[in-house]
Amino acid sequence: MVLYLIGLGLSDEKNITIRGLEYIKESDYVYMEYYTSILTVDKTILEKYYNKEIILADREMIESNFDKEILEKAKTKKVSLLVVGDPFSATTHMDLYLRCINEGVKVETVHNASILNSIGITGLSLYRFGETVSIPFFTEKWRPYSFYDKICVNYNNDFHTLVLLDIKVKEISEENLIKGKKIYEKPRFMSVNIGLEELLEASKNCQREDYRNLINEDNLCFGVARIGSDNQIIKAGKIKDIIKMDFGNPLHSIVICGKTLFNIEKEVFDFYLKKSS
Amino acid sequence: MVLYLIGLGLSDEKNITIRGLEYIKESDYVYMEYYTSILTVDKTILEKYYNKEIILADREMIESNFDKEILEKAKTKKVSLLVVGDPFSATTHMDLYLRCINEGVKVETVHNASILNSIGITGLSLYRFGETVSIPFFTEKWRPYSFYDKICVNYNNDFHTLVLLDIKVKEISEENLIKGKKIYEKPRFMSVNIGLEELLEASKNCQREDYRNLINEDNLCFGVARIGSDNQIIKAGKIKDIIKMDFGNPLHSIVICGKTLFNIEKEVFDFYLKKSS
Repeated sequence: MVLYLIGLGLSDEKNITIRGLEYIKESDYVYMEYYTSILTVDKTILEKYYNKEIILADREMIESNFDKEILEKAKTKKVSLLVVGDPFSATTHMDLYLRCINEGVKVETVHNASILNSIGITGLSLYRFGETVSIPFFTEKWRPYSFYDKICVNYNNDFHTLVLLDIKVKEISEENLIKGKKIYEKPRFMSVNIGLEELLEASKNCQREDYRNLINEDNLCFGVARIGSDNQIIKAGKIKDIIKMDFGNPLHSIVICGKTLFNIEKEVFDFYLKKSS
Repeated sequence: MVLYLIGLGLSDEKNITIRGLEYIKESDYVYMEYYTSILTVDKTILEKYYNKEIILADREMIESNFDKEILEKAKTKKVSLLVVGDPFSATTHMDLYLRCINEGVKVETVHNASILNSIGITGLSLYRFGETVSIPFFTEKWRPYSFYDKICVNYNNDFHTLVLLDIKVKEISEENLIKGKKIYEKPRFMSVNIGLEELLEASKNCQREDYRNLINEDNLCFGVARIGSDNQIIKAGKIKDIIKMDFGNPLHSIVICGKTLFNIEKEVFDFYLKKSS
C-alpha cells in the first residue's frame, strides 16, 4: 500500500513534523533505522509519544532483509520507516525508495532537518561547503586517510568541510566474526577529539606532498555536539585548542573552515570562540 | 524575553515540527520572513492553522527595521520569526541571531528541512555537492556570469551543484527607484527554463577559456519544482531536453551533475529520466 519514509530531524521526539506524526499514527507498522544515526532520546520515549510500537531496524535488517521484512508488508499495509535527520541524507534510503517503486509500492517522503543543513548554526554559509567527509574509527592495521585528501580539495577551493564522525552500533568484532560468533560490541561514537587526532595523523602521513600538513594544528575549525538539542555545544577555535575540549555525550561533528571567513562568518566564529575560551 | 527562529520546512503548513508549532502557539507576536523563499500556501491558511495573526516581514523590515520592529519586542515578549526551510540556510538570519544575543535576548532555533538537504530526493549523494550557487534575473545591462565559474569549479572537482533560482518579491523597478516612487513590482520567480538559458549564455560568454562551454547542452542535470509538496516535479536529463520542459508553479531549482554518477546515483537518474521522457 505505502511506505512512509519519515525524517525525525535531530535530537528528540518533538522535532518530527506534523505530517510525519500524522503518517506514523495511521501506520500499521513503524520501523526505526538506527545504525546511520541516533536520537538523544530512547525508543520507549518515542513509543509513548506516538502511542505505537517501534521495531528497531539495524544494518542487517535494512541492507539484507529489507525486502522480506519491510517491503513485503508495505505491499498491503501502511508502513513507516523512521530515519534520524532527513531520509535522503544517506543514499542507503534512496536505494530502499527505488526498490519500493520498482515493486509498485507507493513511497511518501517526509523531509526534515539533518546535520547537513543544521550545521548552519555555526554561522558558516551553507552555500560554501564542499564535499562532506566521514572519518572512520582507525584500527591497528586499517588506517584509511582518503577522507583527508577530500578536506584538502575543499580547503584549496576555499570551501568549508563538514566532517561526520563514525558510529558503530551492533558491530561484531573481527575476532568474533572469524569465530562465527554473533556477539555485538558496545555502541561506539567517535568524539571530536578522536576525530581531530585521526585527522592530524592523516595530515602528517599523507601521500601527497602538497597536502601533507596543509591542515594542521593552527587551522580554524568548529567542534559541535548534539546539534538541535537543548544542550548542544558549539565551539570554535584552532584545531590544537578544540582537540583538548570536552564535548560530552554523542553525536559529535567537526567543521574544518575554508581558507577565508566572510564578514558574518567571521563575526559568528569570534562569538563562538569567545564563548569557548 | 525570547526570539524563536522557526524553520517551516518546504511547501505547506504541515511541515512545521511539533516543537515549532508549540513555540508559535505560546508567542505574543508571529512574524514570517517572506523574501528569501515562499511556501506554496497562503498566509491565511497558516493563520488559521496556528490560530495566530501573522505579520509579514519583507526585506525592508528584516534588513533595515529588525531592531526596532522585532528585536525590541523580543526583549519583553515571546516573538516568533518564521522562515521557509531552515533558519540558517541564509546567513541573513545568522546576523539577526547575533544581534539578539548581543542585546541579551535569548534565541531558540527550530531546524527544519531546506532545499539544501531535500534535494537528496534526486538520488544524488548530498555528500558530493560542492558550493551552492544562485542565478539572478539578468537585466538588459546587468548580466553577471560569476555563478557559472563556481559551477565549473564544482564540476572539475566532480561535485554536483545545487543551483538556486532568483526570487523577486516586493521589488521596486529601477525606473520607479529613480523617480522615488515606492511602487512594488509583481513577484517574479525564475523558472528552470530561464535559469538554464542564462546558464548557457554565461557558458558561451565566459571569460575563462577553459570554462567556456565546459557546461553545455549535453551536460546532465535535474530540473525540480515544489520539492516537498504533493505535486513536486523531478526531471532528469540533458540540459537541452530539460530546458524545453514545463515545471509549472514556483519554486524551481536546478542541479548540474558532477562529471560522474556513482552506482545508486546513476540508477536513480535513469529512473527519473525514464519518467521525464
